[in-house]
Amino acid sequence: MKETIDHLAVIGVGLIGGSFARAMREAGAVKRITGIDISKTNLEEALALGICDKITQDAANAVKGAQVVFIAVPVCSTIDVAAKIAPFLPSGCIVTDGGSVKQLIVNGCEALMPPGCHFVGGHPIAGTEYSGPAAATATLYRGKRCILTPSERTGNEALEMAATLWGLAGADVCYMEPGHHDRIFAEISHLPHAVAYALVHAVGTADVEGENVLSYTAGGFRDFTRIASSDPAMWRDISVMNREALLNSIDGFSASLNKLRKLIDNSDKDGLSEFFTIAKKFRDGIL
Amino acid sequence: MKETIDHLAVIGVGLIGGSFARAMREAGAVKRITGIDISKTNLEEALALGICDKITQDAANAVKGAQVVFIAVPVCSTIDVAAKIAPFLPSGCIVTDGGSVKQLIVNGCEALMPPGCHFVGGHPIAGTEYSGPAAATATLYRGKRCILTPSERTGNEALEMAATLWGLAGADVCYMEPGHHDRIFAEISHLPHAVAYALVHAVGTADVEGENVLSYTAGGFRDFTRIASSDPAMWRDISVMNREALLNSIDGFSASLNKLRKLIDNSDKDGLSEFFTIAKKFRDGIL
Repeated sequence: MKETIDHLAVIGVGLIGGSFARAMREAGAVKRITGIDISKTNLEEALALGICDKITQDAANAVKGAQVVFIAVPVCSTIDVAAKIAPFLPSGCIVTDGGSVKQLIVNGCEALMPPGCHFVGGHPIAGTEYSGPAAATATLYRGKRCILTPSERTGNEALEMAATLWGLAGADVCYMEPGHHDRIFAEISHLPHAVAYALVHAVGTADVEGENVLSYTAGGFRDFTRIASSDPAMWRDISVMNREALLNSIDGFSASLNKLRKLIDNSDKDGLSEFFTIAKKFRDGIL
Repeated sequence: MKETIDHLAVIGVGLIGGSFARAMREAGAVKRITGIDISKTNLEEALALGICDKITQDAANAVKGAQVVFIAVPVCSTIDVAAKIAPFLPSGCIVTDGGSVKQLIVNGCEALMPPGCHFVGGHPIAGTEYSGPAAATATLYRGKRCILTPSERTGNEALEMAATLWGLAGADVCYMEPGHHDRIFAEISHLPHAVAYALVHAVGTADVEGENVLSYTAGGFRDFTRIASSDPAMWRDISVMNREALLNSIDGFSASLNKLRKLIDNSDKDGLSEFFTIAKKFRDGIL
């Protein structure tokens, strides 16, 4: 496939949006890329790096001639962005996103689409510890999974186009119902982050005879809590946007922890052996 | 210092005991080393590897001529081992251990020491993912911290001897009151393990429309839960032996998690930002 898209608009030219733009360019899938961002610095960097051909802070105007719009902004802003551009989308335009929460975004964005335009929710499972346009690469998504979350309202052609583009970026495309996606990721991603933040919070504020407990931590603690160094704003937004599923996952975790607590309280050696062995088997199974 | 000890007895010739024996040999601190273990296979391996000069399953007999006895067995067995050897300890003998729980062990072992013999609790902060005599090296403790936990009953000479030996092994020796040690390690080591096991348990048993949720996990989840692949028997024993401090740490963690849960439930964006930022600062502070 060569130059299937005449004009791609990427809203948010950071790691996720910039890498998508670079991948599309490298695959020869687009003729023109317009970069849109609220940060002028990011835009100028993206232009200088050749991520896009044109830059603007005016999303509404920029999408007027686009066949595909990729929204790569914080998950709390996706619907706002969709609302801003919706009146200006040309007929047949496909809007897709890269956010890690899907149900609210899909519901919100679908409702905003004018006739003839389609929203396709997407979540590429890729990232690095770096961010911003300078971190963007054409290979970020290669061999990574990208989950598309069609609903009953998603047009087949729009879904196929999104799948084609992600395939050209090198991603393995799979499909999930939006709510299912959110419940899965609440368990395997959002819950672990919540737990890591809570753990560091607890240990950091623990009072053991007035000592700085954290000064005794070694490599194991550092590795275990690395994800608590993630961007607070991003996890605030994800927590709010996937509130219901995350609360449910936290409650499931609390039930497991309370079960373990009771075994320790009872010095139940057989029960502890069983609990730890079951967990170890789960863990070893994902190696 | 050369050959200060005529005869060192090491009970438990696995990674911890075997490495201590090797380090003492390499430092020229001992003339003879007897290896004691309940496993004949371990003993024969330790002898073949040159970890010790003599091997036996009979701890009582083996300690009769020892100046120093190092107990490196699972923490639930340390007091039993001390009880078995106590009647046979020669006057002036120093008994020390390498267990990661101290208060119960120090109390139990001190009470068993015959007149003229001293127990010194120790906890070298070292280990690898491997175990057994073959994993033992003379360099395991080099540059690592070793915490000695003297009580009011610990003789100064015995404490100094233990510190000298660990120093010869290359460890940085520091001192803590046994209960303080247990509360610190409940926070920074035992709690994270309990949380990791509970997390994997919860995610592994989570029912999201009947899917195997773990099949969606990626590198982040694997790194975060690596410590849940630790030996279940060891963590069963540590949980039981440090029960009180660990329960207290779990309760502190649960309080932090409940605080976070409430912020999510209320979609309190400012509160979530603050919570995550505080945790991130703690985490970044230990980098």
